[in-house]
Amino acid sequence: MEQKEMIDLLRQVASGTMDVEQAALKLKEEPFEDLGFAKIDHHRAMRQGVAEVIYGEGKTPEQIFRIAEAMKEKGQKAVLITRMNKESAIYVGEHLELQYDEVSRIGFIGEAPIKDGDGKIVVATGGTSDIPVAEEAARTAETLGNEVIRLYDVGVAGVHRLLGHLDELMEARVIIAVAGMEGALASVIGGLVDCPVIAVPTSVGYGASFGGVSALLSMLNSCASGVSVVNIDNGFGAGFLASRINHIERRTKE
Amino acid sequence: MEQKEMIDLLRQVASGTMDVEQAALKLKEEPFEDLGFAKIDHHRAMRQGVAEVIYGEGKTPEQIFRIAEAMKEKGQKAVLITRMNKESAIYVGEHLELQYDEVSRIGFIGEAPIKDGDGKIVVATGGTSDIPVAEEAARTAETLGNEVIRLYDVGVAGVHRLLGHLDELMEARVIIAVAGMEGALASVIGGLVDCPVIAVPTSVGYGASFGGVSALLSMLNSCASGVSVVNIDNGFGAGFLASRINHIERRTKE
Amino acid sequence: MEQKEMIDLLRQVASGTMDVEQAALKLKEEPFEDLGFAKIDHHRAMRQGVAEVIYGEGKTPEQIFRIAEAMKEKGQKAVLITRMNKESAIYVGEHLELQYDEVSRIGFIGEAPIKDGDGKIVVATGGTSDIPVAEEAARTAETLGNEVIRLYDVGVAGVHRLLGHLDELMEARVIIAVAGMEGALASVIGGLVDCPVIAVPTSVGYGASFGGVSALLSMLNSCASGVSVVNIDNGFGAGFLASRINHIERRTKE
Amino acid sequence: MEQKEMIDLLRQVASGTMDVEQAALKLKEEPFEDLGFAKIDHHRAMRQGVAEVIYGEGKTPEQIFRIAEAMKEKGQKAVLITRMNKESAIYVGEHLELQYDEVSRIGFIGEAPIKDGDGKIVVATGGTSDIPVAEEAARTAETLGNEVIRLYDVGVAGVHRLLGHLDELMEARVIIAVAGMEGALASVIGGLVDCPVIAVPTSVGYGASFGGVSALLSMLNSCASGVSVVNIDNGFGAGFLASRINHIERRTKE
Amino acid sequence: MEQKEMIDLLRQVASGTMDVEQAALKLKEEPFEDLGFAKIDHHRAMRQGVAEVIYGEGKTPEQIFRIAEAMKEKGQKAVLITRMNKESAIYVGEHLELQYDEVSRIGFIGEAPIKDGDGKIVVATGGTSDIPVAEEAARTAETLGNEVIRLYDVGVAGVHRLLGHLDELMEARVIIAVAGMEGALASVIGGLVDCPVIAVPTSVGYGASFGGVSALLSMLNSCASGVSVVNIDNGFGAGFLASRINHIERRTKE
Amino acid sequence: MEQKEMIDLLRQVASGTMDVEQAALKLKEEPFEDLGFAKIDHHRAMRQGVAEVIYGEGKTPEQIFRIAEAMKEKGQKAVLITRMNKESAIYVGEHLELQYDEVSRIGFIGEAPIKDGDGKIVVATGGTSDIPVAEEAARTAETLGNEVIRLYDVGVAGVHRLLGHLDELMEARVIIAVAGMEGALASVIGGLVDCPVIAVPTSVGYGASFGGVSALLSMLNSCASGVSVVNIDNGFGAGFLASRINHIERRTKE
Amino acid sequence: MEQKEMIDLLRQVASGTMDVEQAALKLKEEPFEDLGFAKIDHHRAMRQGVAEVIYGEGKTPEQIFRIAEAMKEKGQKAVLITRMNKESAIYVGEHLELQYDEVSRIGFIGEAPIKDGDGKIVVATGGTSDIPVAEEAARTAETLGNEVIRLYDVGVAGVHRLLGHLDELMEARVIIAVAGMEGALASVIGGLVDCPVIAVPTSVGYGASFGGVSALLSMLNSCASGVSVVNIDNGFGAGFLASRINHIERRTKE
Amino acid sequence: MEQKEMIDLLRQVASGTMDVEQAALKLKEEPFEDLGFAKIDHHRAMRQGVAEVIYGEGKTPEQIFRIAEAMKEKGQKAVLITRMNKESAIYVGEHLELQYDEVSRIGFIGEAPIKDGDGKIVVATGGTSDIPVAEEAARTAETLGNEVIRLYDVGVAGVHRLLGHLDELMEARVIIAVAGMEGALASVIGGLVDCPVIAVPTSVGYGASFGGVSALLSMLNSCASGVSVVNIDNGFGAGFLASRINHIERRTKE
Repeated sequence: MEQKEMIDLLRQVASGTMDVEQAALKLKEEPFEDLGFAKIDHHRAMRQGVAEVIYGEGKTPEQIFRIAEAMKEKGQKAVLITRMNKESAIYVGEHLELQYDEVSRIGFIGEAPIKDGDGKIVVATGGTSDIPVAEEAARTAETLGNEVIRLYDVGVAGVHRLLGHLDELMEARVIIAVAGMEGALASVIGGLVDCPVIAVPTSVGYGASFGGVSALLSMLNSCASGVSVVNIDNGFGAGFLASRINHIERRTKE
Repeated sequence: MEQKEMIDLLRQVASGTMDVEQAALKLKEEPFEDLGFAKIDHHRAMRQGVAEVIYGEGKTPEQIFRIAEAMKEKGQKAVLITRMNKESAIYVGEHLELQYDEVSRIGFIGEAPIKDGDGKIVVATGGTSDIPVAEEAARTAETLGNEVIRLYDVGVAGVHRLLGHLDELMEARVIIAVAGMEGALASVIGGLVDCPVIAVPTSVGYGASFGGVSALLSMLNSCASGVSVVNIDNGFGAGFLASRINHIERRTKE
Repeated sequence: MEQKEMIDLLRQVASGTMDVEQAALKLKEEPFEDLGFAKIDHHRAMRQGVAEVIYGEGKTPEQIFRIAEAMKEKGQKAVLITRMNKESAIYVGEHLELQYDEVSRIGFIGEAPIKDGDGKIVVATGGTSDIPVAEEAARTAETLGNEVIRLYDVGVAGVHRLLGHLDELMEARVIIAVAGMEGALASVIGGLVDCPVIAVPTSVGYGASFGGVSALLSMLNSCASGVSVVNIDNGFGAGFLASRINHIERRTKE
Repeated sequence: MEQKEMIDLLRQVASGTMDVEQAALKLKEEPFEDLGFAKIDHHRAMRQGVAEVIYGEGKTPEQIFRIAEAMKEKGQKAVLITRMNKESAIYVGEHLELQYDEVSRIGFIGEAPIKDGDGKIVVATGGTSDIPVAEEAARTAETLGNEVIRLYDVGVAGVHRLLGHLDELMEARVIIAVAGMEGALASVIGGLVDCPVIAVPTSVGYGASFGGVSALLSMLNSCASGVSVVNIDNGFGAGFLASRINHIERRTKE
Repeated sequence: MEQKEMIDLLRQVASGTMDVEQAALKLKEEPFEDLGFAKIDHHRAMRQGVAEVIYGEGKTPEQIFRIAEAMKEKGQKAVLITRMNKESAIYVGEHLELQYDEVSRIGFIGEAPIKDGDGKIVVATGGTSDIPVAEEAARTAETLGNEVIRLYDVGVAGVHRLLGHLDELMEARVIIAVAGMEGALASVIGGLVDCPVIAVPTSVGYGASFGGVSALLSMLNSCASGVSVVNIDNGFGAGFLASRINHIERRTKE
Repeated sequence: MEQKEMIDLLRQVASGTMDVEQAALKLKEEPFEDLGFAKIDHHRAMRQGVAEVIYGEGKTPEQIFRIAEAMKEKGQKAVLITRMNKESAIYVGEHLELQYDEVSRIGFIGEAPIKDGDGKIVVATGGTSDIPVAEEAARTAETLGNEVIRLYDVGVAGVHRLLGHLDELMEARVIIAVAGMEGALASVIGGLVDCPVIAVPTSVGYGASFGGVSALLSMLNSCASGVSVVNIDNGFGAGFLASRINHIERRTKE
Repeated sequence: MEQKEMIDLLRQVASGTMDVEQAALKLKEEPFEDLGFAKIDHHRAMRQGVAEVIYGEGKTPEQIFRIAEAMKEKGQKAVLITRMNKESAIYVGEHLELQYDEVSRIGFIGEAPIKDGDGKIVVATGGTSDIPVAEEAARTAETLGNEVIRLYDVGVAGVHRLLGHLDELMEARVIIAVAGMEGALASVIGGLVDCPVIAVPTSVGYGASFGGVSALLSMLNSCASGVSVVNIDNGFGAGFLASRINHIERRTKE
Repeated sequence: MEQKEMIDLLRQVASGTMDVEQAALKLKEEPFEDLGFAKIDHHRAMRQGVAEVIYGEGKTPEQIFRIAEAMKEKGQKAVLITRMNKESAIYVGEHLELQYDEVSRIGFIGEAPIKDGDGKIVVATGGTSDIPVAEEAARTAETLGNEVIRLYDVGVAGVHRLLGHLDELMEARVIIAVAGMEGALASVIGGLVDCPVIAVPTSVGYGASFGGVSALLSMLNSCASGVSVVNIDNGFGAGFLASRINHIERRTKE
């Protein structure tokens, strides 16, 4: 795509529609808008096929608002804000129509997306404490147009709880396995199914869980094939990737 | 599937085709063959849709041979052996028709697979030293029926080398980014494309690369979305997962 | 046990007492109750021979209450809640008859257990600061029907304090050694007795104790035989395991 | 016991059977024999109820021989040598009647032990490569008078392989779960049974397994209760502890 | 310089202008002023060519004030205070003319410096959250007499944002690359330019970023040449070193 | 000493002055007083030649008071309390005559000690922020009867500050080098003097200082001989050990 | 520069000298030559102002030869090969005129460079064992046209050895401080001079030096300003960066 | 001392005995001899009161010989060489009269030292495998004029072995506690005695001993006072420091 634009640009220059300096300028300045503290990437939506996402952590309420506003003005239909604290949600909510979920700390601005995924995404957790991360994944995926099935508290210490949901697991297009502590959920699921499994280690645990390191290592060392891993507590990353895999047919058809 | 078999079994018991003790026995014993030192999982091929894989590291030449032989006898058409050293390759090659590649340390027994993937898989490396891991990924994917494009030595220290291959990257169904040292390749690729990127950290490097930890952490912390990570040097895992994603349409159609 | 139930189920299907679909359904759904955020495992009590345990950390007061309530309704006689903060204790205490101990943060609902262990369990600590973890172990064991002897502040820097309690140590069926800092208590006790020693590293200490890592490594490297280790600060795990060992005769007799 | 001996000693002094200086001397010198480079602990056999064990690593063939010889001379019926390399086995075998197993690197001198354990010990491994550590555990337990059942290659990536052996697991008195990589075996077994589970992480794996750290952390963070952990590759420690638990009735009866 | 002073001193002694004991005393006591809790190094300004710097962290408001005051009294024209919290800024501001910037937590006392650097310094950040560290670097450099160009939020996940500023990068005398998470910014910039690049890892990120370790390792392993690294979040150090490099001509001419 | 007491005890038994059971009892119970949560070691004062020390961290104000009170009652002339927070100081101060220093968090009860050390102890710090740890060391040493010289803020970044105090360093009997960050102070001092140097790493620093790990490793790897290290921030340990070395003549003369 | 080339290209297209598709092609393919296993970056020499460098580790003798040969053919006057083992040196030396130094493992092909640096570079080491890394730095710098002064074995344990070379240190344009173990050399030098100091931690040491981590952390935490750090044992990186700083005037003048 | 020399020098300059330039030269060049690869510190013997020591690791046989030879020529009576491999011992032994011990890898050239220490040094080890490190400590101490008592294999798993040597421990002037694995020996000894204890962690162990880290952390966290720690396997450092403490009276008398 970008390659094509470059060729287009060259073509315009060749045909005299655009002069050289302007073309160079265009190449340099066009793709993003500079707010000083942030450079908004209006091309990315096209290039990467999704709504623009704002990572809320470390940004002030006002910064989040100004980025979201600039996106809306450029015609962005949907804006997803992750790691958004309550204070930011209140501030942004006063200026823009924001839907906010406290458990996953996800904010959403815009039209409800059409569920146009190729199949279903299953989000499973080892325990109850993993739910906030799982919800970040699930809601991200839903925002990006996916149908999500939640299987919470199906950890391996009672493997029959998981086996009781074989049907849902078997039918999934992608599975997101969210677990802290020993993180064995990803391996056991990975051994049962034949779809891609995205493992999300969580910082749930204490002592030698070292803030999620134990689950992370477990998942990286999974003896089951078809499992890949994202950062500790990175529900968004898992939901985003799952959506990408779940829209793979649609994308290639277009 | 397994669920269905269980229901079938129950049906046979209900209809009197099978008696109770035998059913229990069947449930317990059928799915794998016990060689004493290894339990071969003849169900997995069906359940996971792929050729059986033997992880060669830590197994004696004779153990590898006996497992492979047992698989062949059960009708397995293709057997993939990873992390196979030369000694094992020679031993197994004396008894079975083995194709062996020294760079990737991959052995293959059986019929050449049909390239039936939905699209193409790109395997890119940061440097020349990452090639053995990349080849493990590439050959695994090829063995599982995928068309693979290799882009080697396109690391970020000369970002134009990568940009020169935008076409191949843009058309890929899945990209495997293999890099050691600072592992930035995955992030830069992840920022350019809209398909899933599987990052493989390698143990290439010295000093503070800590045997691949530096690249691993880099990739887990990638600021680009759509990137997930497998274990250090786990070319097989990346190739296997890429194949799964690249067969996702085919699988659901069947 | 579960195996037996499966065979029973198969028998019922064979005899026509149960039809096939229901049997499959039963296999899938029966063992746990789904509260949405948690799946209560009513089988586990039978299968593992103990009262159900609720891990309180990361659960809201209401979640704890609802899980406990569901257990009581299913006929569970005793419910143990660990890592329960004061807020939860107050909330649950308003609805159910709860006994709560602030030091160990343990809550207990139900009838006082009969002390039916095979012998006595000794819980020893290196220092005064290790007492909360030790109490979690001791009260867990008591709740599960064990007689517990407490030997607190007998650390190795004054080895005669420990030697002064040789009698109690010698007579124990199991010993739980709780220590932070250098964690040498487990080794010294392990060298004196001939019963199993369960070592619990604690996060007590500062600087190079790294939140319990120092004690954990010490205990894992114990030069005394018969010592095994649980997670840092995992008093519950040690108490539970000690109880299991202390009921081993009873269980096999039944 | 030692306490009793001390009282006996005091009694002899009180009755005039022994004079004071000799008593002090006896207290000081009696319990071990000094070979210069090693102090053999002839009391330990009595005090800890087992054959004396020689840890072979870091000892020269001659040192091992001299320690074993001194034990035999003092009347020790059985001597177990762990981590014994082939060179040592050949040297010791020239002087004493040694049984040596290469896989587990265990040497044994003396009479075959009577299988006098209270029940059976199951030793399970995740994969084929874990067998050397498992054999160290199994043979240690056998040497100490236990009946051992081996379940090798039953890792969680194919959870049905494990479920196929529910009978053996259910009937075990103690289970030793040996696994490298993600070490999930201990959790899954721990969730199925109600006997003590001793987890042995192995150094099997590569990359982010960090020589067994991944499995170690996994096992320490096991969400299943009743699981405790020994050092990486410490098959001996697991076998020894399992034997202790499996002789607990016998011991208390004596 | 110091060497020269020593020779001067020796000369004075030789010529009788100074006697021996006084010379020894002078050597010992002269170079710093002792406030009890701090020894102010009045020589350093001369020896190292810069304004004295006070590292504010871990110092009380009063301590900072007293050190700054003593410097002013000795004739120091400019005092830079880093890691200064608001409380200290208020306290010091009541007694001395202080300029304070909250984002970078930098305080400045004295005359505005002349911009006498040889060229320009570019300060680039990967994201918005890295700005406080970048501002510490930028303001330090400005205080030391440098012209600074800020390029914020040009991280590698959208490499075109960076490429859009090639002109500024190409013309820089030194570049400071500030990034958290995967820290790839330094490598990509290092591959584009031919001036020294100072990489500053930041503690921005979560999970496996481990408080900046991920970015630190990434930068140390940079495959681009010409990159060196300072401590995590050490904006001051980067700004100081950049200034030193940017005054290198001036210094040698003097 | 203890050995002697045992012989005395045996003598009394032999002579009939004491009967056997009482002797055993005495051996077991005498050396410490049991407060339930703490076992006070009244022998230690004699055995180790110092005032009893209470480690205040992790103890409640009441626990500290009760331990101190019990010591006073047994005739202890001086009690030193380390890591004592203000709350505890106020509580204990209401019941006993306590001297409390906020910087070092040290409390002292009892008579001022006589300065009876063999020589002088120098306590040096790298920076101003290291002073609290240094004061813990200095006051501990003073409490134990030592003359202490403080050399604060003499870090190696201005090596002349240190060289200006060569006299004091040369005359010291023991030197305590307290430093955070890169901890080079210990090496530089160690290279200048010929007395024992006790290095105390502090948690002063940020980023890659990892809470004192950087200084700790630096000090352990010191290329200067005669340097040993205590735990991070362990001022007490350094002061105590320095006092022991500084009383070594006195002790042997007695 | 690259920006300028792009504008030139656009100009040629505008003037009709080049057509659009060829321009796009040129942009994509021109900058590097593809050997299959390596992409040689012929632009980099121009863009980065230095001879091309081949990192020899992990490359076969033949690969090194073929890369070097391709460079020579494209007109590269000087080729520097780092981490070159003896085997590679012999192989390459048979085909090309190679100068090889065994201590630094550096190979050089081409004309002797003119010493055109702005000043002198000092390379200092803490000990004798650091010399190989120091030589890699020194020879890299010399190859890039710098005058280098070597100060070896001037570690801080004998600070007067360093002070004896104050003249050379004071006159240096850049200093490279190479040290293992506690790595304090960089801080002490950094405190004495006012030029940039590049710190190179080495893997020299044992035990808690952890292969260079101790020195690395020390250097990152240096309390002296003006110090930056490269990877452990990265002599090349330090030499390259030092050369860049030492040619900064020359470069800006051109 | 050095301070005194400086004053002497100044006096000579003042009196005209020496002129200024020569004095400056003398200050700079006199204290060490430059062999190119090493700077021998002939002042250190005087300044630090001991024989010069050569650290053999990382030095070639010839380098060791040349340093030792230069020392002998300058009149050094005794030279101690640590970490000396056999090859070096043979080479040096051909040219100089060398005594070499293979276990401790210590070489010694010169006259037998007089045992002039104030008391005795005890060197204790936890096990047999710790002996090489212990011997490095013991022989270093003997070479420096100390009487050494060896207590080997007295680890805490059999605490009575240690208690049997209370007499020797009680009478020691300094104790060196050498232990690997869990390193508890230092704490137990530290709790029994009132002299300084120098703890030496060893790399003996496997798995979670992490090459001595476990013992190192244990020792740093020792709950016994009076314990300090040196680097892993640093027998020399412990022996050297012990000697320093054991000569403290002698030194101050002179």
